[in-house]
Amino acid sequence: MIELKDILLAREPVYRHLKPTPLYNYPTLDELTGTQTWVKHENHLPVGAFKVRGGLNLVARLPEAERSAGLYTASTGNHGQSIAFAARAAGIRATIAVPEQANPGKVAAMRGLGAEVVHHGRDFDEARLWAQQQAEEKGGKFVGPTDEELIQGVGTYGLEILEALPDVDVIIVPVGAGSGVCGTAIVAKAINPEIEIIACQSAQAPAMKLSWETGRPVEADMNTLAEGVATRVPFENTQRIMRELVDDFLLVDDADIQKAVAQMLERTHNLVEEAGAIPLAAALQIPDRLRDRKLVLVASGGNISMQNLRAALQV
Amino acid sequence: MIELKDILLAREPVYRHLKPTPLYNYPTLDELTGTQTWVKHENHLPVGAFKVRGGLNLVARLPEAERSAGLYTASTGNHGQSIAFAARAAGIRATIAVPEQANPGKVAAMRGLGAEVVHHGRDFDEARLWAQQQAEEKGGKFVGPTDEELIQGVGTYGLEILEALPDVDVIIVPVGAGSGVCGTAIVAKAINPEIEIIACQSAQAPAMKLSWETGRPVEADMNTLAEGVATRVPFENTQRIMRELVDDFLLVDDADIQKAVAQMLERTHNLVEEAGAIPLAAALQIPDRLRDRKLVLVASGGNISMQNLRAALQV
Repeated sequence: MIELKDILLAREPVYRHLKPTPLYNYPTLDELTGTQTWVKHENHLPVGAFKVRGGLNLVARLPEAERSAGLYTASTGNHGQSIAFAARAAGIRATIAVPEQANPGKVAAMRGLGAEVVHHGRDFDEARLWAQQQAEEKGGKFVGPTDEELIQGVGTYGLEILEALPDVDVIIVPVGAGSGVCGTAIVAKAINPEIEIIACQSAQAPAMKLSWETGRPVEADMNTLAEGVATRVPFENTQRIMRELVDDFLLVDDADIQKAVAQMLERTHNLVEEAGAIPLAAALQIPDRLRDRKLVLVASGGNISMQNLRAALQV
Repeated sequence: MIELKDILLAREPVYRHLKPTPLYNYPTLDELTGTQTWVKHENHLPVGAFKVRGGLNLVARLPEAERSAGLYTASTGNHGQSIAFAARAAGIRATIAVPEQANPGKVAAMRGLGAEVVHHGRDFDEARLWAQQQAEEKGGKFVGPTDEELIQGVGTYGLEILEALPDVDVIIVPVGAGSGVCGTAIVAKAINPEIEIIACQSAQAPAMKLSWETGRPVEADMNTLAEGVATRVPFENTQRIMRELVDDFLLVDDADIQKAVAQMLERTHNLVEEAGAIPLAAALQIPDRLRDRKLVLVASGGNISMQNLRAALQV
């Protein structure tokens, strides 16, 4: 089990390449949620998403032999950009498998960061199997989306929340593979077990929620627009942590997620991708539970395609 | 004349309430501009624009007598939010006059920050005359948009650019009243006179450019959508600095500014207001001059209305 000290240890490699992100209160959001509301701006990071923290911690901890053989991973976008960014920072080769329908903006960004991008498979899970195979054949390091070093690295944003707002009451975090919510929950519960950690995901991709609820891995249909949380097969190591530390898990319909993308744009002037807007939509489901409590919404990333942005503005 | 040391002195009051903003290179912009391109993310600040730096420096330097009488100012939006934020941080009352057609999002944000907002006049200049009168009648402190303390404060982003990228070759800065370009030019020229400072503005609001070019105050028609640069009457103190330190001044048609808003969204996943997109549009006018030079575009703010955003996405 990852502990607070492991996340404290990740600070040095993470802050070698990036700075803490802001945590801002928006009176325009308070009005909507009915309580004091802060946004953790992971969309302000290089490559536009929280995952870059995990990649930086992972490459810093790679043994020399694995550094020379290069990294192999699969991604719907943000994880791949994180690995590409971290690999470039460390001078390591990265090969990234993406599903055939991957967001072209994210693919271009990964290539711009110097990674080799290969399209393979219908969805994330098919791309992942291919990358795993390649890593074995070529002797490289396969990076799974929930490797411990990634959870430790992304946990640094949880630390930043607690440093900026030590008396936070509730943190709402979107869940894809679960690294973000695990890192946040490990930090928050170690510092103050009273802090409520609410996970959230699209109702059109409920695998992680159903697995958390039933206590066993449940695969589920996946038809969400929110590619950051488009998980079909649950991840067991993050599930173990979530069952211990996450207090609740809310599902939000894609239509409400799209509405929240527009609300975040209008009220905070920040572009967030669908995953990064789910916490706001989730908060709007439970106003009574949130009243008079200090609320943090994790805006996990900003990498939305123009097509999806246009769709969100037409809802 | 404001000097580098004055801007260094502004660091302490500014960083008491905010953190340096990122300067990121985007390979997706390099592709467009044909040269290595960084964005200075002033849209990541609290209240979403560079001006907050100036407000914080100004309130920190107020004599006790003026603190108790309160601040009076006029604004099309970002300056007013800056003064409201700084006044709240210092526990001072702020009264802000806005034109009758002011951006409702910015007005709501000013009120959310605790300022009293009064609608008055057809444009910024009419609102300004009213606020000036009120300050005299009530014995408060009138804050003009180009007060020296504001230029000193906003100059801190120029310092951050030089710290992050000491070998920058060209900085392109949008001009409304001119505080941003003056602060940047004072820093850049003091550190390296070879750095080229290019000012830019909407072609539908050319007063500052015409005044800079002719060496005397020229009023001009003002029909731009880019409210951050919607200046009809030039400011003499910033003009004096600009004539000495600014190397060139480009005008960009509103249609190209709107296109640049969409390009910034698509390629950097950042929402910038029209003023903050002008530097990209200006860079696209002069690819030959920029080739092989390190280019910084100042994304001055992100406070665009949803109506204008929708219009930009339909261009």
